[in-house]
Amino acid sequence: MINIEWLNQPVKEIASSAIGDAIDRQNSLTKPPGSLGMLEEIAIRLSAMRYSRNKDSVMPAVDAVKIVVFAADHGIAQEGVSAFPQAVTAEMVKNFSAGGAAISVLAKELNAELEVVNTGTVSELEEMPGVIDRRIAAGTANFYQQQAMSESQLVEALQVGYEAVERAQPVLSCNGSRQPLELFIAGDMGIANTSSATAIACALLGSSAKEIAGPGTGLDEAGINHKIDIIQQSLDKHQLNSNEPLQVLQTLGGFEISAMTGAYIACAQKAIPVLVDGFISSVAALAAIKINPNVKDWFFFSHASAEPGHKKIMQAIQVEPLIDLNMRLGEASGAAVVVPLMRLSCALHNKMATFAQAGVSNKDE
Amino acid sequence: MINIEWLNQPVKEIASSAIGDAIDRQNSLTKPPGSLGMLEEIAIRLSAMRYSRNKDSVMPAVDAVKIVVFAADHGIAQEGVSAFPQAVTAEMVKNFSAGGAAISVLAKELNAELEVVNTGTVSELEEMPGVIDRRIAAGTANFYQQQAMSESQLVEALQVGYEAVERAQPVLSCNGSRQPLELFIAGDMGIANTSSATAIACALLGSSAKEIAGPGTGLDEAGINHKIDIIQQSLDKHQLNSNEPLQVLQTLGGFEISAMTGAYIACAQKAIPVLVDGFISSVAALAAIKINPNVKDWFFFSHASAEPGHKKIMQAIQVEPLIDLNMRLGEASGAAVVVPLMRLSCALHNKMATFAQAGVSNKDE
Repeated sequence: MINIEWLNQPVKEIASSAIGDAIDRQNSLTKPPGSLGMLEEIAIRLSAMRYSRNKDSVMPAVDAVKIVVFAADHGIAQEGVSAFPQAVTAEMVKNFSAGGAAISVLAKELNAELEVVNTGTVSELEEMPGVIDRRIAAGTANFYQQQAMSESQLVEALQVGYEAVERAQPVLSCNGSRQPLELFIAGDMGIANTSSATAIACALLGSSAKEIAGPGTGLDEAGINHKIDIIQQSLDKHQLNSNEPLQVLQTLGGFEISAMTGAYIACAQKAIPVLVDGFISSVAALAAIKINPNVKDWFFFSHASAEPGHKKIMQAIQVEPLIDLNMRLGEASGAAVVVPLMRLSCALHNKMATFAQAGVSNKDE
Repeated sequence: MINIEWLNQPVKEIASSAIGDAIDRQNSLTKPPGSLGMLEEIAIRLSAMRYSRNKDSVMPAVDAVKIVVFAADHGIAQEGVSAFPQAVTAEMVKNFSAGGAAISVLAKELNAELEVVNTGTVSELEEMPGVIDRRIAAGTANFYQQQAMSESQLVEALQVGYEAVERAQPVLSCNGSRQPLELFIAGDMGIANTSSATAIACALLGSSAKEIAGPGTGLDEAGINHKIDIIQQSLDKHQLNSNEPLQVLQTLGGFEISAMTGAYIACAQKAIPVLVDGFISSVAALAAIKINPNVKDWFFFSHASAEPGHKKIMQAIQVEPLIDLNMRLGEASGAAVVVPLMRLSCALHNKMATFAQAGVSNKDE
């Protein structure tokens, strides 16, 4: 049994008194109570998280945002489970660095810091601005045939995530100052990584491949059926225990998925709110929760992925994503789109007038 | 039969070739086709709208946004159909002007111009910054007893909406320049206006009050039942024809709802995209579509209101709102929250690299 001590260190506790105070504040603002819906809930949670971090403020803010895209190749791509060729992983790392990818554009619009961590492309890549080389191997091994990673590779991948969170402090805020991180977003890039993520979700939830698998970047029906076969046969071969999340990650892979899992746990331990992206990210979040259940208190789930298995993962974690724009790109793109909603939610919480301040009659008067 | 000539003037046609060009552009960008979901659809429609306006650009943008909140009082408030006292309408107009209301905060964060038009508070209001005095009367008449407006009042209310759109050009863009309007948002403020809007929706859709009515700003179950009774008895009394939308507006009111209807029609005629807010706004949009069906081409529906009747209105118009944050405030607040999503959608469309530019392998290679 793999035991990596830091993963089980306690998560920062969220002060319930701070939640009560933030609810009182929302109910004092000039609007019918509850009428801002999820925007109230976001602000209440962020306010309590901010207070719990170092008891210095109850004013929620997500000005200082770091987006880290973890990239990796997957041995399972050899089984023809993706609509795109494997070369795309490395090509997209270059595109991230050059500013042409969706997440590059979004990060710039949001004034959020973007970093790409190469955790294991098949080929070595030249140095590029904004890309950190933490290549663990030339892609994972093919889990249809063997374990995706060695134990030491898994330990390293989790550590790569931890280091990314360490590196994210302080971060350049959208106000132009360097300050403590207020929101961490992880994204993924890796051809065939929906196969790895699907297999992990099946192993952790006790589901069949058919229940979770979907088109990924764009498989047709025959492609999906082939993907289901490959994943189901792999699951049957490895006979994993759903209560051994580290064993599951090691066997079914994803250097980038494991790094995201490590990053999410590190955030919760350091009292940094996490905004989870779509399908791949949610599988990493599920693994993190299986490893250290309290981390969930620090997670926001951004959007409902169009990848059909995402819904089952949300149900298993018992959460509802904030929006549904039918997105399925990964790269942290769905989470990035939710950042402005969180910022508006904070502005409303901090800046609206109260009934008393504005001289507006309340319901009970 | 009321006939106001300008309402039936043709709507600017959207060039189908421009839609095709925008789809081609989306499919050339470095992402699996369709993977940005609704963000692609928003950009495609905005691009085609922009081109159709004066054939000078296919680059969508919503930098220049005007938000107009129409405020009015309602005679039906006398029947005890709202959780808040009627004084709140005027008090909230002051709060908008002073910057303390939700929409004040949101407009400032978005760098969008905010204007409040007083179309008929019960009492006269002193001059206030950002508030236009177009008070038609001291509130509408009580439609439980009589018609809410005279014919000339309806004509004036529709005209007030038209004038607001005229006044919105040019507008201060979020870039700091004055430029043509790229997005128009209307909002509502008026105690008891969910009763007026519900009655209008029932009359236009042939529904019963029970099918549409909800809690508004926060009625309890007894309050909702009373509201249903009042609205149903009013509908039974007036016996309106669903194909006479102007008659419906005149009878069931809302100076602000009628002004919004006029504004929406004016926007579509002037080739200005409209972002519709929640329940009240959607009823105004429904009335606009009943009056001049082609206006719908220029509408985006922002959010699913928590007011239960909203869903029926969306079904009748055959549209789906972009997000669902369980909001029910009005004031254009739900639409304002969607503006950043539209801006990100434009940035992605305009700034992402194509497969050819980035040297990324496509699906078919």
